Amino acid sequence: MAGTDRTRAEKALRDIDTTGAPAVILINPQLGENIGMAARAMLNCGLTDMRLVAPRDGWPNDSATNAASGALVVLENARVFSTTTEAVTDLNLVFASTARGRDMTKPVVTPRKAAAEMHEAWAASASKAGILLGPEAKGLHNDDVALADAVLTAQINPGFSSINLAQAVLLFGYEWYQASIDVVEREVPISAHTRPATKEELVGFFEHLERELDNCGFLHVKEKRPSMVRNLRNLFQRANLTEQEVRSLRGIVSGLATGRGGSGSGNHD
Amino acid sequence: MAGTDRTRAEKALRDIDTTGAPAVILINPQLGENIGMAARAMLNCGLTDMRLVAPRDGWPNDSATNAASGALVVLENARVFSTTTEAVTDLNLVFASTARGRDMTKPVVTPRKAAAEMHEAWAASASKAGILLGPEAKGLHNDDVALADAVLTAQINPGFSSINLAQAVLLFGYEWYQASIDVVEREVPISAHTRPATKEELVGFFEHLERELDNCGFLHVKEKRPSMVRNLRNLFQRANLTEQEVRSLRGIVSGLATGRGGSGSGNHD
Repeated sequence: MAGTDRTRAEKALRDIDTTGAPAVILINPQLGENIGMAARAMLNCGLTDMRLVAPRDGWPNDSATNAASGALVVLENARVFSTTTEAVTDLNLVFASTARGRDMTKPVVTPRKAAAEMHEAWAASASKAGILLGPEAKGLHNDDVALADAVLTAQINPGFSSINLAQAVLLFGYEWYQASIDVVEREVPISAHTRPATKEELVGFFEHLERELDNCGFLHVKEKRPSMVRNLRNLFQRANLTEQEVRSLRGIVSGLATGRGGSGSGNHD
Repeated sequence: MAGTDRTRAEKALRDIDTTGAPAVILINPQLGENIGMAARAMLNCGLTDMRLVAPRDGWPNDSATNAASGALVVLENARVFSTTTEAVTDLNLVFASTARGRDMTKPVVTPRKAAAEMHEAWAASASKAGILLGPEAKGLHNDDVALADAVLTAQINPGFSSINLAQAVLLFGYEWYQASIDVVEREVPISAHTRPATKEELVGFFEHLERELDNCGFLHVKEKRPSMVRNLRNLFQRANLTEQEVRSLRGIVSGLATGRGGSGSGNHD
């Protein structure tokens, strides 16, 4: 591996824990491009153990390298086997990716369920998992499906369920990765140049705004004033304003009031 | 649309409900191939509203058609706009797909959360949603991000987070589709040629097996017999055997017993 590639590989693997991550086993893949895109999808999701069973165009494959968008660490460590049986010898838990139903009495799991099961099996008994994917268009041979503990099928549009090989790898990897992290929802990042407003700053703005609205007559109906003020305050509370935004809003209120010939008192309190 | 294409499109749309499904808005896409693969990923997930803002190589695009693997109904109905603003005019809820963090105070949601929010918004107020995706490599311009209600970012390997355009479309579509269906986990399909075994058939097999194990001396330690029998019965219960499999197992037991010169009694009881 050249120096730049090594640095890139180190960066790609720096934040992830690959122990227990499933192997991705591509059986008779036809297009190098799909192998490369599968490698990229794997590395996107912290998977690095790629295994190739009898790739049609031999190995290594330039089209794979070109399509990998830098996921060379996956391609360079990929192992090639002649048979599926040899590729799975060290694995304890194997899933067979199929889109079509097979006439087999075997559990069918979704990618999400499979990810949970792989994590559980690794945590419980260091069971190493793998996912079998067949060649483009044809899919897995029934003999390969018979080697698996369960069939892995994403529930998608039944009228158009043929999914690209690398896209299938992404779905499985994505669910694996989601199951291995604490997912943070509805996070609101704050720019480095500011911070969330304090309630004092917020109330300062509210009072400034309400004073100007009193001045211009907007709040002149006495019995309606309390609920109008509450609604306005709620509206701005919902926005989770930063200190900077509060200053901008006060500037706007002052600007509007001054432009109108108002008091502009907000600048002087 | 030619006759075959029309039939194919009808099949692809037969089982899905596209009302309320988000629009996928590709801004300045560079490679026709990615547009085609995005169309395939959309149709896999029941999405059909593709919008293109100033595609680099014009429209229509042969590379897109070739890469779509039959998702022509999406490409043929794709609409082209000159600006992002024009492409989102009819939408109520817009997500901006970005991999990198932006220096903007805007909520960041995962694909799963965004899917839930789009479904809720449609159910509550027929709010139509859309997802903005920027050009390959460069990603969305900050002006486009500013048009969105929230930033949409999949949590993946932070050291290798650049995801292919069509792959990103698949992730968002996948989560949308998962949120719109009843997900069935660990379903065990039964071949059309058989049915789950009855308990009578199972017990018949258990007794057959235990008789032969008594005959061959395997169960000769009297105080251990009850727990050994229980363990064996539990093992076979777990397998959720079919009627056909029970018959095969009885054949195996008989075969083994007969080959050994045993009673083969299983065939005569």
